[in-house]
Amino acid sequence: MKIDINCDMGESFGAYTIGRDEEIMPFITSANIACGFHAGDANVMKKTVSLALENGVAIGAHPGLPDLPGFGRRPMMLSPEETYSLIVYQIGALCAFAKIEGAQLRHIKPHGALYNMAASDEALASAVVSAVKDVDSSLVLYGLAGSKLIEAGQKAGLKTASEVFADRTYTREGMLTPRTLPHALIQSADEAAAQVVRMVKEKRVQTTDQTYIDIQADTVCIHGDGPHALSFLHEIRLKLQENAIDIQPLG
Amino acid sequence: MKIDINCDMGESFGAYTIGRDEEIMPFITSANIACGFHAGDANVMKKTVSLALENGVAIGAHPGLPDLPGFGRRPMMLSPEETYSLIVYQIGALCAFAKIEGAQLRHIKPHGALYNMAASDEALASAVVSAVKDVDSSLVLYGLAGSKLIEAGQKAGLKTASEVFADRTYTREGMLTPRTLPHALIQSADEAAAQVVRMVKEKRVQTTDQTYIDIQADTVCIHGDGPHALSFLHEIRLKLQENAIDIQPLG
Amino acid sequence: MKIDINCDMGESFGAYTIGRDEEIMPFITSANIACGFHAGDANVMKKTVSLALENGVAIGAHPGLPDLPGFGRRPMMLSPEETYSLIVYQIGALCAFAKIEGAQLRHIKPHGALYNMAASDEALASAVVSAVKDVDSSLVLYGLAGSKLIEAGQKAGLKTASEVFADRTYTREGMLTPRTLPHALIQSADEAAAQVVRMVKEKRVQTTDQTYIDIQADTVCIHGDGPHALSFLHEIRLKLQENAIDIQPLG
Amino acid sequence: MKIDINCDMGESFGAYTIGRDEEIMPFITSANIACGFHAGDANVMKKTVSLALENGVAIGAHPGLPDLPGFGRRPMMLSPEETYSLIVYQIGALCAFAKIEGAQLRHIKPHGALYNMAASDEALASAVVSAVKDVDSSLVLYGLAGSKLIEAGQKAGLKTASEVFADRTYTREGMLTPRTLPHALIQSADEAAAQVVRMVKEKRVQTTDQTYIDIQADTVCIHGDGPHALSFLHEIRLKLQENAIDIQPLG
Repeated sequence: MKIDINCDMGESFGAYTIGRDEEIMPFITSANIACGFHAGDANVMKKTVSLALENGVAIGAHPGLPDLPGFGRRPMMLSPEETYSLIVYQIGALCAFAKIEGAQLRHIKPHGALYNMAASDEALASAVVSAVKDVDSSLVLYGLAGSKLIEAGQKAGLKTASEVFADRTYTREGMLTPRTLPHALIQSADEAAAQVVRMVKEKRVQTTDQTYIDIQADTVCIHGDGPHALSFLHEIRLKLQENAIDIQPLG
Repeated sequence: MKIDINCDMGESFGAYTIGRDEEIMPFITSANIACGFHAGDANVMKKTVSLALENGVAIGAHPGLPDLPGFGRRPMMLSPEETYSLIVYQIGALCAFAKIEGAQLRHIKPHGALYNMAASDEALASAVVSAVKDVDSSLVLYGLAGSKLIEAGQKAGLKTASEVFADRTYTREGMLTPRTLPHALIQSADEAAAQVVRMVKEKRVQTTDQTYIDIQADTVCIHGDGPHALSFLHEIRLKLQENAIDIQPLG
Repeated sequence: MKIDINCDMGESFGAYTIGRDEEIMPFITSANIACGFHAGDANVMKKTVSLALENGVAIGAHPGLPDLPGFGRRPMMLSPEETYSLIVYQIGALCAFAKIEGAQLRHIKPHGALYNMAASDEALASAVVSAVKDVDSSLVLYGLAGSKLIEAGQKAGLKTASEVFADRTYTREGMLTPRTLPHALIQSADEAAAQVVRMVKEKRVQTTDQTYIDIQADTVCIHGDGPHALSFLHEIRLKLQENAIDIQPLG
Repeated sequence: MKIDINCDMGESFGAYTIGRDEEIMPFITSANIACGFHAGDANVMKKTVSLALENGVAIGAHPGLPDLPGFGRRPMMLSPEETYSLIVYQIGALCAFAKIEGAQLRHIKPHGALYNMAASDEALASAVVSAVKDVDSSLVLYGLAGSKLIEAGQKAGLKTASEVFADRTYTREGMLTPRTLPHALIQSADEAAAQVVRMVKEKRVQTTDQTYIDIQADTVCIHGDGPHALSFLHEIRLKLQENAIDIQPLG
């Protein structure tokens, strides 16, 4: 049994700092690095790629919507063609920062609203998949476990990573409970860690209506900001190790 | 005897169109494609790379300052580190659009204020050169003939292309006459073509004070907008052919 | 009988030009001036306000979504609070350019996706109305005839202008036929002019299924770009005059 | 004897937070509020204007260069015309947020590189002054004590506020010691407070070469970020009160 631990990284911008990248990096196995659209900039990308390499962490592109003021979290109606081009552009930009360090991108994970839209919209999912396949078909595509994005990726022959969340609850349909609802978030590090372990060992997750659904957990997403980021991360790692689950990157 | 004809391309943005890319492309040998900072966007880059390939034109990155409202023409005080990262980012982004077409970047030419600053400022020139070398040392570096940028590129072992201008006059120091001065521009297609031919055949150019200075002409820059773009281009091609000068890409 | 003729203006940006503002301005009565979010910039706003005043044209703010690459045409999910603030900001910015000329804003018309979203979404309509009322309650609010925006404006006691389109067809529900459908656009200047006259005189419009619906026409929107902009405009003015309909600004 | 205490405020942006606005606001008399170009956005402006009003703090516009990635700190070569328009735009935008609260702008202070360029470049200083005068001639213009900006403002009949810095050292020429040099910053709250008191009471400041120069101190700038922001501020207020210097806004 094994799992990858991923975290969104490099989301600082110019004079603005977000996230505790230096503290978190040593404890994850995959870094999703922002590419300058929803967050991040060229300087931050360079620094974050170096930081990941120093810590032996796999580097992934984390492309987002062209919406810096909204941090890529506001749905925008983009055509599949526009989406394709945005993904190509952002993977390429990050790829160059890997190249100057003699390293390679390992994966890609869309950000925020793009992640959510591609999880449920087949045309967008297919645009993302085509972009990844055309730029570098060896990249592992990260997406919500059970989503259209994972489905489209597998159909196209891409390696995929089904992503689960430690601190989010799930609906009976296997979707994340919207943040606007109560009980969307798991507040206790203990419970979060227990949920992750169960997803890996039992391949299922308890939903908000107390039933169980099947879930594939290749990688777990950790949040790198907030006051409790580090304690959650440590608790999850501890529980994984206690349960003899290897923490290692994919691919 | 031979020369490359290059033109800035792909400078349209969103709903905005600049340049007559489709009309010009068949008559040039190298396209400098904007990378989304001073102009261009992901859609335009995709389209422009395709257009260049259809016409057998070599593809180059045309990175600029992060100043869309100023079209990258307003000098900004960037540190060498910032400049390095901006160049890496933009080359990478364009590179991905070449990759999805199975093509490769052939060259890079900085745009506008970045081109001018790197022509005279050693620290910036060196930052540009390092970025190019680190991302892809096989790229040909385009710069103003006789500039610090060409000097830095050669010193670092990069292939370089000394660029001359058909429709700009030169000072005794070998610099372009600033556009704010009279006689900065050559208005006649005939004279422009004659200047290019002389630069290639005699390796010298007449300056605004009627002396001659030596100049290396590996590539000539053509402007792709303006009402006379096409007639200038045709006149230059005609004169080059009459003088048995081959028109071909570098590298 | 009377009608106002409005046109979107000042949508050029930096080095990019869109629209034939100087040719169109003499023939309209109200200019909707872009405020730098979806299009336009500070220089363009200054110039466009001057141009409107020279032509005795009423000045209005034309706020849009913060989406320059998409020209404000791509729907984005903004909260009512965000929408409120964006409208306040943009009205204020344009207001200052009126002030330096000793002039005043007369109206406001949301742009593109914001216009469409506020036409059908009550919460957004209400946010736009609150912003207008709070910044300057004497402004005339332009919106699609029969829309939620006009309804919300009237309810809040704002002066409103019900807008109709010369070159767009209408559905039985009184909405514009989506541009993705055939027959969305009226291609003939003659027919476009006839539609406007009918809307003013008979207060109704023929729909795409050949029925008639009631419509209020306080102002007609003219498009300022495209090869036929001027000939359409002239035909419409001619027909209005032949039918003794005064062309004059509102308020 | 009296002095105004001002601080740059509202420099957060989207998901990014900078500055301790809520902690600082109760202890200053004038807030310079970012206008969305170098920092800030429409939501932040709304919130910051409210916060200032709740604390009885005078509201000022803090316009900057159009350079969010550089936080407005990187000099850009703008023409006086462009500068004029940028200032008009930003004052107008902030003005609208004051208006919705029934309040008025009291002052304006250019930010970062714009502040510095306008301190020494007469053409830019004059462009800033014209913009302020044209938009609202009752605004107090803040500028570096002894600068071209203050000179241009006074010549044009604007009310001006000569600004001094608590935690920066001065050269013999009355300029701030560049941050790249040692001793540019005063590290001790005690010394910073003493410098402010001396500038108000004795109208002079000790320079880095131990001479004294005359200085006019109408307002002192406090930095709102950094770990020591609050302790510096408290020490300065304490020393001012001990020396019977009133802390009050201008105008």
